[in-house]
Amino acid sequence: MKRYVIGIDFGTLSGRTILVDGDTGREIASSVLNYPHAVMESTLPDGTPLPPDTALQHPLDYVEVLKTTIPAVLAEGKVDPAEVVAVGIDFTACTMLPTLEDGTPLCILPEFEHEPQAYVKLWKHHSAVAEAENLNRIAAERGEPWHARYSGAVSCEWAFPKIWETLNRAPHVYSAAARFYEAADWVSLVLTGAETHSPSFAGYKWLWNEVDGFPSNDFFRALDPRLSGIIGTKVSTSVTDPATIAGTLSARAAQLTGLREGTVVALPRPDAHAALPGLNMTGDGELIVIVGTSGCQILNATEEKKVSGICGYVKDSIIPGYYTYEGGQAAVGDMFDWFVRNCVPASDVEAAKAEGVSLHAYLRRHAKELRVGESGLLAMDWFNGNRNPLNRPDLSGLIVGLTLQTKPYEIYRALIEASAFGLRAILDHFRDGGLPLRKVCAGGGIPRKDDLLMQIYADVLNLPISVTSTDQAGALGSAVAAVVAAGICDSYAQASERLAPTPCALYTPIPENVAAYDRLYALRQRLQDTFGTGEFRDLMPTLRNFR
Amino acid sequence: MKRYVIGIDFGTLSGRTILVDGDTGREIASSVLNYPHAVMESTLPDGTPLPPDTALQHPLDYVEVLKTTIPAVLAEGKVDPAEVVAVGIDFTACTMLPTLEDGTPLCILPEFEHEPQAYVKLWKHHSAVAEAENLNRIAAERGEPWHARYSGAVSCEWAFPKIWETLNRAPHVYSAAARFYEAADWVSLVLTGAETHSPSFAGYKWLWNEVDGFPSNDFFRALDPRLSGIIGTKVSTSVTDPATIAGTLSARAAQLTGLREGTVVALPRPDAHAALPGLNMTGDGELIVIVGTSGCQILNATEEKKVSGICGYVKDSIIPGYYTYEGGQAAVGDMFDWFVRNCVPASDVEAAKAEGVSLHAYLRRHAKELRVGESGLLAMDWFNGNRNPLNRPDLSGLIVGLTLQTKPYEIYRALIEASAFGLRAILDHFRDGGLPLRKVCAGGGIPRKDDLLMQIYADVLNLPISVTSTDQAGALGSAVAAVVAAGICDSYAQASERLAPTPCALYTPIPENVAAYDRLYALRQRLQDTFGTGEFRDLMPTLRNFR
Repeated sequence: MKRYVIGIDFGTLSGRTILVDGDTGREIASSVLNYPHAVMESTLPDGTPLPPDTALQHPLDYVEVLKTTIPAVLAEGKVDPAEVVAVGIDFTACTMLPTLEDGTPLCILPEFEHEPQAYVKLWKHHSAVAEAENLNRIAAERGEPWHARYSGAVSCEWAFPKIWETLNRAPHVYSAAARFYEAADWVSLVLTGAETHSPSFAGYKWLWNEVDGFPSNDFFRALDPRLSGIIGTKVSTSVTDPATIAGTLSARAAQLTGLREGTVVALPRPDAHAALPGLNMTGDGELIVIVGTSGCQILNATEEKKVSGICGYVKDSIIPGYYTYEGGQAAVGDMFDWFVRNCVPASDVEAAKAEGVSLHAYLRRHAKELRVGESGLLAMDWFNGNRNPLNRPDLSGLIVGLTLQTKPYEIYRALIEASAFGLRAILDHFRDGGLPLRKVCAGGGIPRKDDLLMQIYADVLNLPISVTSTDQAGALGSAVAAVVAAGICDSYAQASERLAPTPCALYTPIPENVAAYDRLYALRQRLQDTFGTGEFRDLMPTLRNFR
Repeated sequence: MKRYVIGIDFGTLSGRTILVDGDTGREIASSVLNYPHAVMESTLPDGTPLPPDTALQHPLDYVEVLKTTIPAVLAEGKVDPAEVVAVGIDFTACTMLPTLEDGTPLCILPEFEHEPQAYVKLWKHHSAVAEAENLNRIAAERGEPWHARYSGAVSCEWAFPKIWETLNRAPHVYSAAARFYEAADWVSLVLTGAETHSPSFAGYKWLWNEVDGFPSNDFFRALDPRLSGIIGTKVSTSVTDPATIAGTLSARAAQLTGLREGTVVALPRPDAHAALPGLNMTGDGELIVIVGTSGCQILNATEEKKVSGICGYVKDSIIPGYYTYEGGQAAVGDMFDWFVRNCVPASDVEAAKAEGVSLHAYLRRHAKELRVGESGLLAMDWFNGNRNPLNRPDLSGLIVGLTLQTKPYEIYRALIEASAFGLRAILDHFRDGGLPLRKVCAGGGIPRKDDLLMQIYADVLNLPISVTSTDQAGALGSAVAAVVAAGICDSYAQASERLAPTPCALYTPIPENVAAYDRLYALRQRLQDTFGTGEFRDLMPTLRNFR
């Protein structure tokens, strides 16, 4: 009998599902659904306007992914549901929502459908800045022992600032919430009917670790007396053992998906982390660089090092026996898309149309003809704040060097370079912390289609970078997790070797570009120091506060 | 018998000619010609590519203005040429060209038509940066007495850096040049057949004044031995008495223009200065703010003050008995046009088309709905370098506060605000130098059609600003000069009163906007200090040097 597994990757804009033969590693079918509500940034479905820095999702979009893509891959692969032995899922993080006791999202109740705080807060929902600042200040004052694991900088993207924001802006939503769920765990609940609290998310985003558990109730009381008692009530303490599974498919979920009741469901993983096994990067010092709407760097390493300026690290989060270290850039593809949507003149749109290429491809072709530095432009990639190494969501994008001769494709290239410099600034912290960088593989939506970006990344980092041939690294990683959960393979290494595809390209640094970028990067770091931590550290937040 | 005068304003992109009744002040006719070669920034007419920061013109375009617009106004006004008693002209400055002994422009000779250095260098030709720097360094080392009149900062836009650049880049052009002419004086030559050297241009742009004359030959030898002897040979020392006229119309020019031989030709004036009498701003502390492709501020004052950070000042340059103080912004409308040409998405172009309005009008309407600071953006208007108060053509534009939510109309407004802040930075120097600012009138191409810009200017400056009802301030000022030169009026004050139109609008500061802009301006001044004179003073030039 065949043994198939399913991997589902819940990204920022869509859910992607693949069906894989667990014994051969062959991908049989795949299906993508764009979330019907996409990302809600300006209004709710009913027209309620949203404040700045809001990024919400609708939880039923995730259910829609299960309901449409799983039957689609079964049909495409002509596979008997009885032969599907396990499902793995990965998800953006921290993407979270409030629910009733039974898991019903508050936002689908009529009394809350007009209330932004009742919806899913997507990872890039950025309006809990004040809460994150207060949380960090109070944690520092109290010398909270867990604070150092996160470089002393809990992000406004993480769970507790987002929950505290709900309490501050909509106390009735907070009261009505029986649970706050990581969306990944909520989808697990939809599939299995059982509540889990996955250790990867808990470790990275909910301030938990396997030794100390959650921060103390004293800490939460110090934040806000109304938060007292939250752990163990609205936030489940039953963090699941990483060696176990999330559960098995419920009858109801079997009906929803067309799979067999009792199918194994692996513990969900954050999307970028799932890519480690998805790209066969399971050894010491192996780094994956995910370049998508945002950027994420996941380093697999055997040693525990105190690294500053990163998002955090968790033991056994993905591959048993390894620590995974995570860094992140809050906007990469989002920034290029912003540019293409907002800043490209009609003449370029027409020229691209005449050539029959996308605007991105058109701009890239012209940007490629530029020498390093030829535009005279330098940009900071802080259009969605800086996640690492500064952990300052209150920063903003900057472009310097503009002249009356500046062309759109020059700005486009400067933004690509900005993302490369932002990445280098994070990897500097990995290196300075004593972690090895032995092998780099790029994945995500952008590397396979943007050879200019990849060459710039290799030149700016001065590292050879391979590019995965799949854009399903997350889904593949989830399929690997499913293969292991189903017992088809004994180890992630073995399962990864079987499922992960061979890279499709290798970019090697060009020495003269490396030298020129070293000089530009030095200027860029002066800007980072000045606007991020130095004399102008208040300037961008002050401007933001005008809004 | 009627006594008509003609005023001709040679701007950056066109020549505008008006015909005025000298006794009533009534404008009879007007005509505009866009220069056929416009501004040559990327190639010469023969396709020769031009280096960065080049801005050239073709001298025969000016002749074309004389040949078409003068007959046009005579025809439109049905005026007998015998009744035209005088012609006045004003011109951009320093706009200059090399010629043969007889005034033939070198660029029209076959041996020089492929040579950029043989063409007219427009005021905004910006590639003589190194020459200007060396000139200022050497002048400072030698303690040249005239250097303080120009705040110790001779601009790369002025005559000697431009001439020195010709010597450095094309010594054969320098050798072949019998004269370097200010374009205004060259047009005078075309009209009268007589060589003049107008004191306004000589004073502002050629380092001359009425007491000390030109810098010494020792100074020029110290710059470059090949420049030794330039004064009195390639640069005429016969600077004309401001109380006299340029000459009278030659037979040849009479044939060219259809005017009568012997018609009085007034001494030409820099375009922005001509606007003083053109707008009836002839008293102490009266300031005109010209907002066009670039920005210019001309203050009329009775007292001589040592003001730093301005372009310079000249006595009796326009109105006898007064000093005129000049400040300038290197790009204003040019910056908005750059934005509209390069940075506005097709969707906005279509929306503007659907509404039947220009893109500028479309963006303005949306920008108007923003509260002060609502965009969270702050920009520096240095897209063409900074003329005043820093005199640093090597600076470049900067935008900070960009986010994924930033809209094109928000950037558009930020650029308008940037120009307002740049203006305020200059007026701060006038005030700090002890000069009065009693009355402000705005002219140039933009104020009458951009009420958003005017309100922002009034709010940022915290000054009421009237707007002239004419877009012919320069041409009117030239007509005033012609009226005085012809002896129709005894004084500029009298002639101005007669010719200048009543302002069409008055913008009054809105107190809450004033307060908000004060806070934004303080941030802007921190950026000016840091990038202009402080820690980052080298950053923009370093980027520029990558080009």
